[in-house]
Amino acid sequence: MNKLLIVGTVAFDAIETPFGKTDKILGGAATYIGLSAANFSNVDSAIVSVVGEDFPQEYLDLLTKRNVDISGLEIVKGGKTFFWSGKYHNDMNSRDTLDTQLNVLETFNPVVPENYKDADVVMLGNLHPLVQLSVIEQMTEKPKLVVLDTMNFWMEAPFMDDLKKVIKKIDVITINDEEARLLSGEYSLVKAARVIAEMGPKYVVIKKGEHGALLFNEDKAFFAPALPLEEVFDPTGAGDTFAGGFSGYIASTGDVSFNNMKNAIVHGSNLASFCVEKFGTERMLSLSKDEVSSRLAQFRELTQFDFELA
Amino acid sequence: MNKLLIVGTVAFDAIETPFGKTDKILGGAATYIGLSAANFSNVDSAIVSVVGEDFPQEYLDLLTKRNVDISGLEIVKGGKTFFWSGKYHNDMNSRDTLDTQLNVLETFNPVVPENYKDADVVMLGNLHPLVQLSVIEQMTEKPKLVVLDTMNFWMEAPFMDDLKKVIKKIDVITINDEEARLLSGEYSLVKAARVIAEMGPKYVVIKKGEHGALLFNEDKAFFAPALPLEEVFDPTGAGDTFAGGFSGYIASTGDVSFNNMKNAIVHGSNLASFCVEKFGTERMLSLSKDEVSSRLAQFRELTQFDFELA
Repeated sequence: MNKLLIVGTVAFDAIETPFGKTDKILGGAATYIGLSAANFSNVDSAIVSVVGEDFPQEYLDLLTKRNVDISGLEIVKGGKTFFWSGKYHNDMNSRDTLDTQLNVLETFNPVVPENYKDADVVMLGNLHPLVQLSVIEQMTEKPKLVVLDTMNFWMEAPFMDDLKKVIKKIDVITINDEEARLLSGEYSLVKAARVIAEMGPKYVVIKKGEHGALLFNEDKAFFAPALPLEEVFDPTGAGDTFAGGFSGYIASTGDVSFNNMKNAIVHGSNLASFCVEKFGTERMLSLSKDEVSSRLAQFRELTQFDFELA
Repeated sequence: MNKLLIVGTVAFDAIETPFGKTDKILGGAATYIGLSAANFSNVDSAIVSVVGEDFPQEYLDLLTKRNVDISGLEIVKGGKTFFWSGKYHNDMNSRDTLDTQLNVLETFNPVVPENYKDADVVMLGNLHPLVQLSVIEQMTEKPKLVVLDTMNFWMEAPFMDDLKKVIKKIDVITINDEEARLLSGEYSLVKAARVIAEMGPKYVVIKKGEHGALLFNEDKAFFAPALPLEEVFDPTGAGDTFAGGFSGYIASTGDVSFNNMKNAIVHGSNLASFCVEKFGTERMLSLSKDEVSSRLAQFRELTQFDFELA
């Protein structure tokens, strides 16, 4: 068994899309990453995070039922869980944040469980860069792969220097196209990836939402499209589900070669294509092995061709 | 030898991008399609179009030198060539038309050369739908494949009915995402493709510029990305170069199966990736066979993966 350590938020979300709106539902980067990574065999995974006393036991059970270890998930007595609320525009590609209540996240001090300090893969979900850094520093053995997800919020003062510190210590960064441009100061994604790689990570993954995802490593590039869907119902968590699929597949195979990262990108995109079909985590919670493999076959049909080079 | 009949504008363009601007240079849909299709062996191609007496012999020579038959290219005595001028915005994804002078195009009456009335593949570049229709009606044998490119301008009154007439008679339509949405009234491209297929064409190609191209046929879909480039210098003609690569490859192979259309999409995307590297037709005119094959190999690296389905 290989070990995957996941760090990120476990949260309440309230979401509004053109298709409807939800009350507080289960959300958070670590939640989506964990549910996504749970689709792979040969992986033991654990979440390091924090919630308040208001967090329902049934949500915790959803994770443990899927063999996600939550011994590193701190429950703060009398504390309130992190809450995010957002509204998507009609094109589903942009959204407004309506409310953010950090609550227990404000004083979060992550503690990596003893038996995950030698994890093979570390997946750092979007969080304060110093929290991400603290997790890396607690590892007693150098992981095969450290993957970091982050966002534009940390790419400005006063956080940018902290972000640069953690970026220096990771192997793979996953960000969206707008963030890649912000972080690098380059509009061309090819140039942006090169600038970001010089900051530390050998592998740069640029997520383009409905336009797919790019993986860069030195002079090599790989691209996987998003599966064309009849309807995108709610994009919340798609990026984290992608990251969970990517890191879960790498942990499951134990292979960090560029060729295997291509496969990981495809598995990540495949899982993300389910996530957006319903509100929040709903679709990920009902996902079957057969659905996952049959959509992987669709991905193959969508992207693979065969002709002789002239 | 298979025959490819190309119909479309041969024109003067004046282009402005963030990288610079040009005086009147060689342009037009049929020009780009012809130069792109000229990269395939086993194809005889001919252009049906019209220019004025002001059109330089050296531009005509560029086509004939590449074995493009221009006996169907009418030169109107005393007439002036179609002129288009446009300016691209900083993101290169949108542009303003600064000037359009139809000139000889206003009274264009296409005449298909006798020896191309049995062409295997007909590529109808963007033009008035009734001009496109007139070409189809001149064919004495049903072509293996009729491909139509068009634009938003024809999707509104008073042209929409004419466009629907020609769409009914073709096999493949190539339009961009915005046009697919306009033509179908559907935002989701999957749904848009289905609606458009009901109008006539079995195959719907949706071009997404830097975000690649989608091919739909019944329940099947295929996607090819645009090659990630350091710099897009001038997008003019990229869509026509794509169409020329697509139709040229189909004509070259004589195979209209869905699997071969996937290959055609890849070849079209590959050739379009060169077109945008310089102003106008400049890059297409300097293109070597080796450059084309080596970039095809890059395309393969970019998109092909290999893992066993679980």
